[in-house]
Amino acid sequence: MLAIFGGIGYYLGQLKHMSSSFGTVFKISTWGESHGVGVGVVIDGCPARVPLTREMIQHELDRRRPGQSDIVTPRNEADSVEILSGVLDGLTLGTPIALSVRNKDQRSTAYDEMQHTYRPSHADYCYDAKYGIRAWAGGGRASARETIGRVAAGAVAKAVVRAICPQLEVVAWVQQVHSIVCPTPAEQVSAAVVESNPVRTADAAVAEQMIAAIKAARSAGDSLGGVVACTVRNCPVGLGDPVFDKLEATLAHAMLSIPACKGFEVGSGFAAALLRGSEHNDPFYMEAGRVRTRTNNSGGIQGGISNGEAVNMRLAFKPTATLMLEQETVNDAHQETTLRGKGRHDACVLPRAVPVVEAMAWLVICDHLLRQRATSL
Amino acid sequence: MLAIFGGIGYYLGQLKHMSSSFGTVFKISTWGESHGVGVGVVIDGCPARVPLTREMIQHELDRRRPGQSDIVTPRNEADSVEILSGVLDGLTLGTPIALSVRNKDQRSTAYDEMQHTYRPSHADYCYDAKYGIRAWAGGGRASARETIGRVAAGAVAKAVVRAICPQLEVVAWVQQVHSIVCPTPAEQVSAAVVESNPVRTADAAVAEQMIAAIKAARSAGDSLGGVVACTVRNCPVGLGDPVFDKLEATLAHAMLSIPACKGFEVGSGFAAALLRGSEHNDPFYMEAGRVRTRTNNSGGIQGGISNGEAVNMRLAFKPTATLMLEQETVNDAHQETTLRGKGRHDACVLPRAVPVVEAMAWLVICDHLLRQRATSL
Amino acid sequence: MLAIFGGIGYYLGQLKHMSSSFGTVFKISTWGESHGVGVGVVIDGCPARVPLTREMIQHELDRRRPGQSDIVTPRNEADSVEILSGVLDGLTLGTPIALSVRNKDQRSTAYDEMQHTYRPSHADYCYDAKYGIRAWAGGGRASARETIGRVAAGAVAKAVVRAICPQLEVVAWVQQVHSIVCPTPAEQVSAAVVESNPVRTADAAVAEQMIAAIKAARSAGDSLGGVVACTVRNCPVGLGDPVFDKLEATLAHAMLSIPACKGFEVGSGFAAALLRGSEHNDPFYMEAGRVRTRTNNSGGIQGGISNGEAVNMRLAFKPTATLMLEQETVNDAHQETTLRGKGRHDACVLPRAVPVVEAMAWLVICDHLLRQRATSL
Amino acid sequence: MLAIFGGIGYYLGQLKHMSSSFGTVFKISTWGESHGVGVGVVIDGCPARVPLTREMIQHELDRRRPGQSDIVTPRNEADSVEILSGVLDGLTLGTPIALSVRNKDQRSTAYDEMQHTYRPSHADYCYDAKYGIRAWAGGGRASARETIGRVAAGAVAKAVVRAICPQLEVVAWVQQVHSIVCPTPAEQVSAAVVESNPVRTADAAVAEQMIAAIKAARSAGDSLGGVVACTVRNCPVGLGDPVFDKLEATLAHAMLSIPACKGFEVGSGFAAALLRGSEHNDPFYMEAGRVRTRTNNSGGIQGGISNGEAVNMRLAFKPTATLMLEQETVNDAHQETTLRGKGRHDACVLPRAVPVVEAMAWLVICDHLLRQRATSL
Repeated sequence: MLAIFGGIGYYLGQLKHMSSSFGTVFKISTWGESHGVGVGVVIDGCPARVPLTREMIQHELDRRRPGQSDIVTPRNEADSVEILSGVLDGLTLGTPIALSVRNKDQRSTAYDEMQHTYRPSHADYCYDAKYGIRAWAGGGRASARETIGRVAAGAVAKAVVRAICPQLEVVAWVQQVHSIVCPTPAEQVSAAVVESNPVRTADAAVAEQMIAAIKAARSAGDSLGGVVACTVRNCPVGLGDPVFDKLEATLAHAMLSIPACKGFEVGSGFAAALLRGSEHNDPFYMEAGRVRTRTNNSGGIQGGISNGEAVNMRLAFKPTATLMLEQETVNDAHQETTLRGKGRHDACVLPRAVPVVEAMAWLVICDHLLRQRATSL
Repeated sequence: MLAIFGGIGYYLGQLKHMSSSFGTVFKISTWGESHGVGVGVVIDGCPARVPLTREMIQHELDRRRPGQSDIVTPRNEADSVEILSGVLDGLTLGTPIALSVRNKDQRSTAYDEMQHTYRPSHADYCYDAKYGIRAWAGGGRASARETIGRVAAGAVAKAVVRAICPQLEVVAWVQQVHSIVCPTPAEQVSAAVVESNPVRTADAAVAEQMIAAIKAARSAGDSLGGVVACTVRNCPVGLGDPVFDKLEATLAHAMLSIPACKGFEVGSGFAAALLRGSEHNDPFYMEAGRVRTRTNNSGGIQGGISNGEAVNMRLAFKPTATLMLEQETVNDAHQETTLRGKGRHDACVLPRAVPVVEAMAWLVICDHLLRQRATSL
Repeated sequence: MLAIFGGIGYYLGQLKHMSSSFGTVFKISTWGESHGVGVGVVIDGCPARVPLTREMIQHELDRRRPGQSDIVTPRNEADSVEILSGVLDGLTLGTPIALSVRNKDQRSTAYDEMQHTYRPSHADYCYDAKYGIRAWAGGGRASARETIGRVAAGAVAKAVVRAICPQLEVVAWVQQVHSIVCPTPAEQVSAAVVESNPVRTADAAVAEQMIAAIKAARSAGDSLGGVVACTVRNCPVGLGDPVFDKLEATLAHAMLSIPACKGFEVGSGFAAALLRGSEHNDPFYMEAGRVRTRTNNSGGIQGGISNGEAVNMRLAFKPTATLMLEQETVNDAHQETTLRGKGRHDACVLPRAVPVVEAMAWLVICDHLLRQRATSL
Repeated sequence: MLAIFGGIGYYLGQLKHMSSSFGTVFKISTWGESHGVGVGVVIDGCPARVPLTREMIQHELDRRRPGQSDIVTPRNEADSVEILSGVLDGLTLGTPIALSVRNKDQRSTAYDEMQHTYRPSHADYCYDAKYGIRAWAGGGRASARETIGRVAAGAVAKAVVRAICPQLEVVAWVQQVHSIVCPTPAEQVSAAVVESNPVRTADAAVAEQMIAAIKAARSAGDSLGGVVACTVRNCPVGLGDPVFDKLEATLAHAMLSIPACKGFEVGSGFAAALLRGSEHNDPFYMEAGRVRTRTNNSGGIQGGISNGEAVNMRLAFKPTATLMLEQETVNDAHQETTLRGKGRHDACVLPRAVPVVEAMAWLVICDHLLRQRATSL
């Protein structure tokens, strides 16, 4: 094998599988290609007797589906979920829960050009190099349709967490689109306000500006990135598993696995670099018999373990890679060429990323909650 | 259990274990408390017949040890490693490699006050709340001494990666201390320059400023945070395992598990929020028969898979939590009190964090390299 | 929690989930209840570009389906498989392969009595005690329909193994039904002969006796157990992962997870107890440049690793627990009662267990084959 | 790679690592070669605040150590254990517990011949074929010294289980040596009687016969196999995790991973083949408010889950492979030769296997106990 790395030496051969599993106790395995038969997930590790209905799952899928507003892709897919196993009469059985969403179009001609030409900043080239084969239509496994399985599983995780911690709340919102920033502090963000505007930001006036910016970018055939923030409220003290599976480490893993996510920070994040210890430390005090911190630069996590304050995080998202502009690229014969995007795409993924971010947070919280029960005495 | 969450409802009980394992094929399990018998690691999954000597491991441990320069903690610990198993006559056996470093001081009186008083922004309170017991001396398991196991295992991972990809290089450096920024671009950073100055930055002149700032903070009993950057050069195309174990996701997991790390970004990172798609996309072109990108906003990773460009990432570190200043806090009887740090501490952890960041990068690269061989045909 | 174990102290509470995953690199997660929507499996870890068709999977399912002959249950279920993902144009994509089989009858009245009365030597009581809920119709998750996912995944594993080791062969057969023993030595067993008789034994004359015995037991409302033997031919040297994942240990794990399996032995097995070392040791010799053993008491495995000889194993199966005879039992109100089986059942599970045993063997071999590639240099 | 399997095609190349980890929540990683620095184990997943002393571990190691009686190997190794981490003032910390036993002789000349000649029915040839390297002295990793880590970890598992289920008891005993069978039924076996005779059987008179047989075999330079039985008493209802991790499946995995074990059966085991369903089924009845079974052919497990009856199993052990007789074999140059054993060996491994069998049972029970707490509501 050494010879393969000699010379130009950049290829490992054409090979490999891809892991689509996440979690340690509450484990999910997602499956599906964007233009195959469908997409879905199997959840292995869900406790028995948790109240769960199809509607609870469909509600979250509706929040991520295309066509839900005039600033997201106009593709109109119902993304209707079917529960194949693991639930009886509205209660989980403790057995694996299989969830499936059929694709409407199993093959599309809108993507023919993609069969041989690599879209810049997409996964096409890397998939070909790694696997030697790819379901090119619509991005195949690398399509954002893959997140349907995450959102469906996240709805189940939410049901489990709520059965244990009824007051725990996860709220994500679009905090920034390009240069437009929503200034609402995390503790004042209202889930109802977020859900009331199509861009899913925390302030109605800012929403208007963001919507205008997204429409302008779309008209120009271009796209915008931004920041999604997420807060976990009423998180019990004690979640997180040092050393390697610190709460922030597993959250970072979860979030960076979302397509287009480029950065993650918890609490003070990168701003910590500019603070002195005397400014950054969160003094402890007592409030109503409970240990609290006066500030929350720790983002609700110390030593990898939740301390009972809100768990605050921020995620950077890059602008959509598919553009209606001509771009320089190469094809699978390794010839230089150009490509212009076709089809219907989001000019800004952030509004539809909000339910995905929440789903990943529920999955991480649920897994840590169950993990720590494993060794209680 | 539900009752526990009723009312104020913030405790999950006092219980639990902590996971100290990392990796899927190249798996490490670290162990040890800061003032126990010692610290160490068992590596399960190292291939046979990789050249490995004790010196290769000790060299990396010397880079993270206390007392190595006048800007780090003056505690003088040799941190001498012993190979207990898995190596014969300079070659790995394919069997588990156990590495051990004995602690010099198994119990210290310097930390007596810590037994009952929680240090702000440390793990003390959370450990007590989660486990109902903690090795309080020197931070116990939450001490930075825990990273010795990571650095030792990282040296073994490096040996494995080098046996497969001799030209692969991991270089980390201190890019920012408080407001002082090292402007050297990632591709121009020299490992030799980084190692030539005690602060481990990429420019000798900037190093002087950083050193001065750290000494000033230390004199004031205060501490500084900053940013560590890391680049992986000559990374083969094809590393990373979509969907959930994307290369950037496992790197983020690894890095956020390092004590004091608050943020992670890959490629354009949070700056991506301010770029349009037409600015952010990395055009493909051909160079010497190889697919390249003209820019590297992707940070060497597309669709979760390395594309052959440099894998660039940045990590935010908070300022050291231990201060020689009086701070407001509470004790384990939940009474409000104050605390002033004692003992010898780093006023800025970043110089010693550099080898830890590199170790985590080697561990992630090694694991992905072995994972993908598992399914080659 | 301790109080729960005080007094008689036999219950752990009513709780829990069940794990339905198997494998480390080639990982499968099965799902489904016998009278739910369907049953299936997701395979995460299948290499790309392996030739795979729906027919290859359906062929194995047909071998285990009910109604295939007059000595198995007359329920007539087609068990038609659908490939939902992971395959394109006859080749695997490296992405998860989701396979689904719809149930014909989603609820049956044939099992109404089972809702509250525990069938002796079935899983009913234990499921209720552990989970506090169960899909009682047809045994739910504990039904033998669960093995459909195993057989489907085993067909994929076979395709992967064959792509790497074209000559590797797995053959299982019914070696014993009650007191009727098939004397054909493992090395003389022909897969064609096994498949030519409905009882799947290795000798046509013995088959007639076994069939007669099964029919007689069925007429009496009773059932029979027996032994399934399995041999892996042309197994490459080097499969198996000491210490804990020895080849025989993972095979034993796989086989004892099959419903009704009560025992496993490899090579000499329990007969080893009566041999002296001088009789049991397998002398090495050279044959055509290859290291061979003159006898094969080791069953093709030494030190947990395959040695190139046939891997021979035997599995004990208990008689079917469902009887058309009145039996003493209790109900879920913990009252003593009696129960007589209804519905259509196999009076001897062994003929239909043969493809399940083979599937588990393929899954174990495939996983070990991929595992050991992970660390090749 | 396909070419490697062409032609005779029996080698996979020389490569690979070996996994030495076991368990899912209570995870152990053993390490060490027989003539290296030492052997040991890291336990990751032990709950906090479990009472644990060095003596509790040493006690079990003394039961397996060489030189403990005149029917085991006369090598006199103290096998003194050191707790390196995870325990403070007699309580576990919830952090990894590292346990180490130093070897007395790090290199021995007694084994020089083994460096190049493969001992029949040992791991030597397979290790060489798989890894291309082996620590040949004393068998290296394949030596029975590897079980020290298991026994030490088993002592910790026992402490954890006892903290949760104080009445749970694991007793193993030698039930058969060659043709001498101990007839004591499982429910009448006394741990005190077993420990009172050096052969660890359940009847003093039978012990005398077994001892005589072992001494006779040793005098002849030969060796004997046999059967170890094991019972788990007062096991709570509900342990075991269907589908793949049934309690009997994980027990089988654990037991078949012990060196020299060739078979495993639970409850009726292979005898089930000769019983009709009407004879084999265990009728349920009520006793003191508890569901019981009148017989226990199920071996305390139904549907993969413990039912509250004793969990009974039996393990076949082959006779020791090292003989003081000349045997036919080959060397690592693939030349035929002969070999006669040297050094001090057990003529029958069963007496020293008893504590190893018990340790594996404690590890499995502990892991299942913690697993099922993970998802309790």
